[in-house]
Amino acid sequence: FLHITPEMVMEAIPERPVDSHKGTFGKLLNISSSLGMTGAAKLSVLGAQRVGTGLVTLAAPRSLISLHAASLTEAVFLPLIENEAGTVARTAAVQLGPKLEQSSACLIGCGLSNNDDTAAVVEFVVKNAKCPLLIDADGINALGRNIDILSEAAGPVVLTPHPAELARLLNVETEDLLAHRVKYGRAFAQKYNLTLVFKGAHTLVFAPDERVFINTTGNNGLAKGGSGDLLAGMIAGLMAQGIPPLQSAMCGVWLHGAAADRCADRLSKTAMLPSDILTDLCGLFREYNR
Amino acid sequence: FLHITPEMVMEAIPERPVDSHKGTFGKLLNISSSLGMTGAAKLSVLGAQRVGTGLVTLAAPRSLISLHAASLTEAVFLPLIENEAGTVARTAAVQLGPKLEQSSACLIGCGLSNNDDTAAVVEFVVKNAKCPLLIDADGINALGRNIDILSEAAGPVVLTPHPAELARLLNVETEDLLAHRVKYGRAFAQKYNLTLVFKGAHTLVFAPDERVFINTTGNNGLAKGGSGDLLAGMIAGLMAQGIPPLQSAMCGVWLHGAAADRCADRLSKTAMLPSDILTDLCGLFREYNR
Amino acid sequence: FLHITPEMVMEAIPERPVDSHKGTFGKLLNISSSLGMTGAAKLSVLGAQRVGTGLVTLAAPRSLISLHAASLTEAVFLPLIENEAGTVARTAAVQLGPKLEQSSACLIGCGLSNNDDTAAVVEFVVKNAKCPLLIDADGINALGRNIDILSEAAGPVVLTPHPAELARLLNVETEDLLAHRVKYGRAFAQKYNLTLVFKGAHTLVFAPDERVFINTTGNNGLAKGGSGDLLAGMIAGLMAQGIPPLQSAMCGVWLHGAAADRCADRLSKTAMLPSDILTDLCGLFREYNR
Amino acid sequence: FLHITPEMVMEAIPERPVDSHKGTFGKLLNISSSLGMTGAAKLSVLGAQRVGTGLVTLAAPRSLISLHAASLTEAVFLPLIENEAGTVARTAAVQLGPKLEQSSACLIGCGLSNNDDTAAVVEFVVKNAKCPLLIDADGINALGRNIDILSEAAGPVVLTPHPAELARLLNVETEDLLAHRVKYGRAFAQKYNLTLVFKGAHTLVFAPDERVFINTTGNNGLAKGGSGDLLAGMIAGLMAQGIPPLQSAMCGVWLHGAAADRCADRLSKTAMLPSDILTDLCGLFREYNR
Repeated sequence: FLHITPEMVMEAIPERPVDSHKGTFGKLLNISSSLGMTGAAKLSVLGAQRVGTGLVTLAAPRSLISLHAASLTEAVFLPLIENEAGTVARTAAVQLGPKLEQSSACLIGCGLSNNDDTAAVVEFVVKNAKCPLLIDADGINALGRNIDILSEAAGPVVLTPHPAELARLLNVETEDLLAHRVKYGRAFAQKYNLTLVFKGAHTLVFAPDERVFINTTGNNGLAKGGSGDLLAGMIAGLMAQGIPPLQSAMCGVWLHGAAADRCADRLSKTAMLPSDILTDLCGLFREYNR
Repeated sequence: FLHITPEMVMEAIPERPVDSHKGTFGKLLNISSSLGMTGAAKLSVLGAQRVGTGLVTLAAPRSLISLHAASLTEAVFLPLIENEAGTVARTAAVQLGPKLEQSSACLIGCGLSNNDDTAAVVEFVVKNAKCPLLIDADGINALGRNIDILSEAAGPVVLTPHPAELARLLNVETEDLLAHRVKYGRAFAQKYNLTLVFKGAHTLVFAPDERVFINTTGNNGLAKGGSGDLLAGMIAGLMAQGIPPLQSAMCGVWLHGAAADRCADRLSKTAMLPSDILTDLCGLFREYNR
Repeated sequence: FLHITPEMVMEAIPERPVDSHKGTFGKLLNISSSLGMTGAAKLSVLGAQRVGTGLVTLAAPRSLISLHAASLTEAVFLPLIENEAGTVARTAAVQLGPKLEQSSACLIGCGLSNNDDTAAVVEFVVKNAKCPLLIDADGINALGRNIDILSEAAGPVVLTPHPAELARLLNVETEDLLAHRVKYGRAFAQKYNLTLVFKGAHTLVFAPDERVFINTTGNNGLAKGGSGDLLAGMIAGLMAQGIPPLQSAMCGVWLHGAAADRCADRLSKTAMLPSDILTDLCGLFREYNR
Repeated sequence: FLHITPEMVMEAIPERPVDSHKGTFGKLLNISSSLGMTGAAKLSVLGAQRVGTGLVTLAAPRSLISLHAASLTEAVFLPLIENEAGTVARTAAVQLGPKLEQSSACLIGCGLSNNDDTAAVVEFVVKNAKCPLLIDADGINALGRNIDILSEAAGPVVLTPHPAELARLLNVETEDLLAHRVKYGRAFAQKYNLTLVFKGAHTLVFAPDERVFINTTGNNGLAKGGSGDLLAGMIAGLMAQGIPPLQSAMCGVWLHGAAADRCADRLSKTAMLPSDILTDLCGLFREYNR
């Protein structure tokens, strides 16, 4: 194992160039949200914004745009065609195609729901996103229907499963998976040539080659709904700024945990919520002069 | 009377285990809200989240989901079938049954309204919730139609009435009830084998056995709409984490009052609002290293 | 002129009794809001809550309830019948009648709009509110149609016009009114036996008898849309707690200005907004141990 | 080049007069927003409010009013007729005409969208606004269809393009434009007799005469979606208070950058968001006793 260190993180995140504009810091297309799971999308947008992304577009079911727009002041929105269940419809692919071309990274899956329509959209995005793509949560669940779609990915892919999601995807028992984390993780990342963020008390990051990195920041105050969505947004936001997928994953998990440690000191592990961590990201970047 | 002490509270609330995930800290199903009384549901969700619950699902009338989702970032939502009055319909029971099976605790009643439909839903939940169940506010009002439903409860029950609600439920005068708080409270808790949180300037907690506990934290800054909803969420959130109902009730009333005392010092008794108390919960848990 | 002093204010506002509940601190019925002017209603609700009112009910056009409920966590709502313009319909009187009976004070007019329907509702409320009634903004404009409605008031009345509103009501030129503030104010308050809060750089409070009080707190950072709505809510909230109308008016204008002075020190006169002042009310009550 | 200094800024912004009311500080009509780009409108309203404007009216597509009103507490709203795309319809001109007469400044374009309808509305406003008019973002894009509309402006005009917007407007390559910023900017400002705010790492302000001013406040933490909307609102808000267009532009860019520099110190360049800068404006005005 290689430990992720603050030095590795800050080396991967360059100082922001002086003569820059919002285009300099990338455009993230975030395809997330469904009726009843909108908070996941919100946290992923905020995570991406707080790591410095130039512009985040949230592509979400049309009927949910007002709800999201009421609180996400700095984001823009792509209202997607939706089905009767209030999730993205498969026909939304025609809207996403052109937008993918203009984006420097893509995130799919936070609170997306898992049905035939969303699975079709996930497949479309995997096969058409030439920019770095992060697949999280229900995006991973959708892959469980046909994992080999990953072999047809148009660009570099990062996956961010928690143990139960990865067990379903690999069709193994969770206990078996947890007992052999490195074996399963390494084999999977190599087979599909992707970066795997295997979340847990100590998150492991598997490179497409044989390398494995372990993260030691973070605490059990993260064991609450929404933590994973925040992490997905952070990693995707780093990718949108041109940081390579493996480095983005390593930086994201370290920053997420380090900010959570600050948050626990400030608000307690019991009472802290994922959205509180955004404040601590500010302190972290300030400390490292970024 | 036994006084509730900080030692009792912190003994009942274990340190959070290191190797944990959101499932470790429980799943609360919160069945609340109706048109015009949505703030009650919101405060109960936030109360549960700030005591450390892993995941809170708010089951509310479908037309109110957007309103709630706009501000409750870390919650997920179950949109319930509703009637013309904008309250939960009795047919929503079919939605709630499977969800109760997956939950580690249930809360019903905050801003629920009181009509034939909501009464039917309350009855369904009492008879089908095998997990610990907290009944508050309009949930208690619904029981007033047929108190003996409590004899058919499928799992342990906690009730959190204020004096007027308990007087209606027991069909006695409020003055009579207040003059004989211990007699009425003890008899009621024993008869129905439940934990009774009898709210007031000094809240009493009656165990199903003969024990009575008195709480001495809190102040008149709590004498505002919404305080009770916050308390209900806190107790239910502790139950969801596996803390037994009696201990959850004792911890909840103590924490609620102690945080309110901090809040009064910070913002004044006159100006403080129930939602402000959430901030003080953070300081409290931090002080006790939780 | 008598100057309003902090001593007068704190004498009028008693310490909160220890053995109290939300009923102890009153119930305010606030009839406000219309499409496009919802912020006025919001500020008046918050003003009432931050002076310690037990429960505030906002009665507003039905289609605006969701918008208000999204941010006013501690309020409850009465969805009123509305007309095509998105304002209260005259038929809403049947909804308001029973609610007035249960309220300890009533506020009407913040962002209400001024049309035939709202004028009819204002007339109904003036003639039927036995509790203290504050009429602000569009409520005052409605009275301009027939000022003698004030002679038929069912209970004590407070009016809170700014100069242009009072000039319209009295059918005089604003310049003339401003040149003879005391003459006009005293005559009007006596004629209609009401408390008049004549707003300006130095607000004057006219008692129904001959007394006139001048307020010297406040600053030009208040010269922004929304300041008056906040004041109306504060005065009405004090009345709801049983403080007599004249004392409520005097306390309200002093507290509003004193909090604004703290706010200007904290955020600057230029940048401060009315909603910021709510924070400073907390500090003020804390300083005076209320 | 003349450098914009704090002395120039504070000389242009007078101390607020003591005997004032909201009318003293102007009325801004802000015509902005469309489905999916609502945050731009929100930031422009907040920017105008935080520089001290008496009253800001947001004129936006009717279906977006609730969304905006939920968070913009101190603004009032003019619900505009909209087309099927959720943008302002050309028929909204009849609503805007009378409102322009009552306003002391007008802003058009933040998140407005660019289609035949919005272009017609921009043309109407340019030809009918006798008060100072700021044209930003999609307002500038609309001018690209026929730049000579600017010759028919009814009052003084300020334009706030970023390089790509100005390149499109002038029909030149962005590289060419950036290589000859002063030449192009000076010629354009003189030809159309307007004030041009040419945004960039060092923003240039071109007076209608030959003068050019350079701003040295600000940092790359501003390189995020929403920064420009905030600036537009600030400049327009200063104009609404009677500060001449050129001075408003100079003050706006200096204040925007200086507040951003404070914000970067507080929250880091990476993590800061445009809405955070509003807090720093308060500190800035307080430091300069405004």
